[in-house]
Amino acid sequence: MNLLQNISVTLMLLFSYLSSLNSTIFNNEVNQCTIPPELQKEIASYKTVVNRIIHSLLVGDLQNTTYRRLAEFIDKFGNRIAGSENLENAIDYMLNKSVELGLENVHSEEVYVPHWVRGNESAVLIQPRYQNLNMLGLGSSVGTPVDGITAEAVVVDSFEELENIAAHVYGKIVIFNERYISYGETVKYRQFAASKAAEQGAVATLVRSITPFSLNTPHTGWQDYSDNVTKIPTACITAEDSHMLRRMQDRGERIIIKLKMEAQTFSPKLSRNTIAEIKGGEKPEKVVVVSGHLDSWDVGEGAMDDGGGAFLSWNSLVILKYLGLRPKRTLRAILWTAEEEGLVGAQAYVKAHKNETQNFNFVMESDEGTFTPLGLKYTGIPDGKCVLEAILSLLKDINTTTVEEPADGGPDITFWLSEGIPGASLLNRAESYFWYHHSAADTMDVEDPEALNLATALWASVAYVVADITADMPRKPGQFL
Amino acid sequence: MNLLQNISVTLMLLFSYLSSLNSTIFNNEVNQCTIPPELQKEIASYKTVVNRIIHSLLVGDLQNTTYRRLAEFIDKFGNRIAGSENLENAIDYMLNKSVELGLENVHSEEVYVPHWVRGNESAVLIQPRYQNLNMLGLGSSVGTPVDGITAEAVVVDSFEELENIAAHVYGKIVIFNERYISYGETVKYRQFAASKAAEQGAVATLVRSITPFSLNTPHTGWQDYSDNVTKIPTACITAEDSHMLRRMQDRGERIIIKLKMEAQTFSPKLSRNTIAEIKGGEKPEKVVVVSGHLDSWDVGEGAMDDGGGAFLSWNSLVILKYLGLRPKRTLRAILWTAEEEGLVGAQAYVKAHKNETQNFNFVMESDEGTFTPLGLKYTGIPDGKCVLEAILSLLKDINTTTVEEPADGGPDITFWLSEGIPGASLLNRAESYFWYHHSAADTMDVEDPEALNLATALWASVAYVVADITADMPRKPGQFL
Repeated sequence: MNLLQNISVTLMLLFSYLSSLNSTIFNNEVNQCTIPPELQKEIASYKTVVNRIIHSLLVGDLQNTTYRRLAEFIDKFGNRIAGSENLENAIDYMLNKSVELGLENVHSEEVYVPHWVRGNESAVLIQPRYQNLNMLGLGSSVGTPVDGITAEAVVVDSFEELENIAAHVYGKIVIFNERYISYGETVKYRQFAASKAAEQGAVATLVRSITPFSLNTPHTGWQDYSDNVTKIPTACITAEDSHMLRRMQDRGERIIIKLKMEAQTFSPKLSRNTIAEIKGGEKPEKVVVVSGHLDSWDVGEGAMDDGGGAFLSWNSLVILKYLGLRPKRTLRAILWTAEEEGLVGAQAYVKAHKNETQNFNFVMESDEGTFTPLGLKYTGIPDGKCVLEAILSLLKDINTTTVEEPADGGPDITFWLSEGIPGASLLNRAESYFWYHHSAADTMDVEDPEALNLATALWASVAYVVADITADMPRKPGQFL
Repeated sequence: MNLLQNISVTLMLLFSYLSSLNSTIFNNEVNQCTIPPELQKEIASYKTVVNRIIHSLLVGDLQNTTYRRLAEFIDKFGNRIAGSENLENAIDYMLNKSVELGLENVHSEEVYVPHWVRGNESAVLIQPRYQNLNMLGLGSSVGTPVDGITAEAVVVDSFEELENIAAHVYGKIVIFNERYISYGETVKYRQFAASKAAEQGAVATLVRSITPFSLNTPHTGWQDYSDNVTKIPTACITAEDSHMLRRMQDRGERIIIKLKMEAQTFSPKLSRNTIAEIKGGEKPEKVVVVSGHLDSWDVGEGAMDDGGGAFLSWNSLVILKYLGLRPKRTLRAILWTAEEEGLVGAQAYVKAHKNETQNFNFVMESDEGTFTPLGLKYTGIPDGKCVLEAILSLLKDINTTTVEEPADGGPDITFWLSEGIPGASLLNRAESYFWYHHSAADTMDVEDPEALNLATALWASVAYVVADITADMPRKPGQFL
C-alpha cells in the first residue's frame, strides 16, 4: 500500500513537473499580475525543489513528522499557560529539540508575562433547582470570596438588554446569553461582560461560551477589565446552560446561583520566545519568519491552539534543514510566548527587534487551525499577492493555491503587518475551529497527520522560495528588486 | 410573518387535499400492495383530519407545544435515573399534567427497578505525566476501595488484542481503545469490557466512550458482569484520552492510573410506568400504544434520551384530545421506567398485560432521537407496511412518507414485536444521535421546536388513523378485518 502510494505520488509529481516545463503553471489570474518575466521564470524553476518537499512529506521519509513530533510534545506536556513551570519546561524541550535536529542560532529571548492561576472553581444553580453548571473562569478574572458569591441572577441577551434593565442589576449575577454570530463579532461579550455589568452594580458575570457548537462545553479566554470599574469575577458557562437559564427567567422563575472561584493574578513571570534558524546562505541579515505560539490555555492540551501552528512552522525549518535546503535569506522560526494573554511575547519581540524591521522580508504565522490547507491569507501590497500566487501555483498538486486577504489568522505578526511588512497566515478548512478553541476539546484528536503533511509541504515551500528568490517581497508597487 | 406563514400553510394543505380527492395519494409503490380498495379509500378519507393535525402543530395554536412542554419538564427535573427520587417526582408531574390536560384513565403501574448510584469518581493519569482523565463510571459497576486503585495500565484496541496479551494483564487496569464502527457493533466493549478483562486478572477497566464524535466527552451506559468472574470497577473515558494513552504505550512509556469510584448498587426500588389514554369510542378494549421512556442517565438532562420520545408520544395524545379526536380504538401513552437498566419497566408491563396481548393492535415507540422526521421504522408483515405507507402518504406535505424496516429505534416494544405484534419507531435524521447519547451533552439544545412539531404531526396522525380505521393492523397476510 505504501509502496503503491509512493509510486503513484512520484508519477503524479513527475507528470506535474513536465507540465510545468510547458509553462502551464501560470494561470490567467497570475498573468494579470505585473511580475517581471524573469521573476516568473525564476519562481517556476523551483518546481523541482517544491516537488521534492511535497514528496518527502506525503510519502517519503518525512511523512507524518509534523504530527508525530507534535504528538510527542503534546502528550508530554499537555496544556501550557503563561506563567506556568510547564510552559517553561516545554520551551526548554523545544530549544533542546531544535539543537538536536540541527537548527541554527537556537536561543530564547526573555519577556515578562502575566501570571494568572485558575484554582478551584464552580458555579451551582441553587434555584429553581439544584444543578452544577459546567464553567471555566475567564483569564485575568478576580476570584470570589472564599465562601463564594450567592446571588440572584438576571439573564440578558445583549449589552443593549443590559442597558434596558440597568435598574435591576445591582447586587446580581448577570448572565450573558448572547447569540453566536462569529468569533470576531461575538467575543466582545467574553472580553467586556464583567466591566459592562460592574458599571451597573453587578457582583459577577457568567458568559455563554463563544462557540458555534457545544457538547455542554465551556470555552475560556482572556477578558479585560476597564479602568475605574470594580473588578468582579467572570466565567463562561455552556451554551446549553445559558439557554436553560434564559428559559427559566422567561417563565418568571427566580434564579439563584452560587459562584466560587479561587482565581488569582500573581506578579508577572519571566518567560521566553523560542527562536531557531536556518542561516541565510547569501543575505543572512534578511529574514523570513515562520511562527506560531507555544503557550496555550490551561484546559485541554493546546494541540490545535496553537501546537499545530507552532509545529507547522518549527518543523518546516527542521525538514528544510534535513533536506539540505539553505536559502539565500535567513529562515527564522519564532515560537511566541503568552499569546493568549494579549500577544505579550510578540509585542516584546517586535520592540526588541525594532532596528531589524527593514530586514524582515516576509512574516508568517499559523494560529487558526492546521486542518486541510487551502493556501494562504495575505496582507501586503497587490504585487506581493502576485508573487505569492506564482509560488502557490507550484503547489497545485496538493490543492493549496488560493490566496485570500487579509492575513487574519496570524495575531502575533499583526504588529509587523501594520507597519507594512508583508505577511501571511495559513488558509485552511477551519470551519470547526471554534468548536474546540480554548476548551477541554483542544486535543491531538483535532489534528490530522495527513492535513499536517500537506500544510507543512505548503508552509515549508513558501518559506523556502520566498527566502531564496532574488527579489525581496515587494513593499512598494513595482519594487521587484 | 406568522400570519403569512399561516395562510401559506393553509393554502398548501387545501391544495394537497384537493389533490388527494383526485386519488393521487396512492403512488405506484403503494399500489403494489394488496390493500382492499375500500380500505384505501377509507385511509384517503383521513386527509382532512391529518391536515388539521398538521396545521394546528405547524402554524396553529398547538405550535411548539411538544418542545415547550418538554422544556418545562426538562428544566424542572434535569436527569432522572432509575432509583432516584427525582424520577419519581417526574412521574408524579406527568400524572398530574395528564389529568390537567384531560387525558383519561391516568395511572401508574409499579415495578421494582435497579438502584445504582454513581457517587464521586475520578481517574487520574499519574505516569508518564499527571493529567485528570474525564470519565464516567458505567451503570452497575462496583466501586473501588476508598483509597482508589492505583495500577499500571495496558491499552488494547480489541478483545482479540486482550487475548493476545492475556499473560500481561494480571493486576493491571485494562484500557479499551476500540475503534467506533457503529453503536450496535461497538457497544459490546462498554457492556463486556469488565468481564473480559477480569477473566485475565485485571483490576479495573476504562473503555473509550461509544461515540463517533467527541469534544472530550465521556458517555456512560449500562454494563453487564458475567457470572463467575470477579466484579471489577469499570468506567468510560473520552476518545481523546484513550487515543493519547495508546500513543504513550506505543512509545514504550509506562502508564500508571489512579481510579476512584464510589459507585454502589442498592436494593431495587419501587418505580412506575406512567399510563394515560384516550379511551376508544367503539372498540375501547383494542389498544394502539405510543411510548417512550421517562427515565434517563444521571448525566446531562435526558432531553433527547428519551425526553423527546416520551413527550412526542404523550403530547400526541394531549393534542388529539385538544382537537376533540377520539378514535374507535383506545390510544394509550406509556412512559416506561428504567429503560436504561435493561428495559425493566417494559418487561414488567408486558408480563402484567399478557392477557391483553391480542388487543394490542399497534405499538409505537420513539427512542432514537426526535430530529427532523422522515417517516417510520416498522416491524410486522408486509401487509401492515402497505397500510402504513398508505397512511404516511397523507403526510407527504411534511415529507414524512418513508417506511423502513425494522422498528429498531424502539427498544421497549421489542418484547411485543417479537411476539408478532406490529409496531413502529420514529425514522428521523438521527445522524448525530450518538454524539449526545448518555452524556452531559444530552440537553434541550439537541431538541428543535420545528422538528418536534413535524414529528408530533406524523406521530399523532399515524396513531389516530391506525386507531380509528375499520381494519386492525394485519398480523397475518390478507387479514384486513
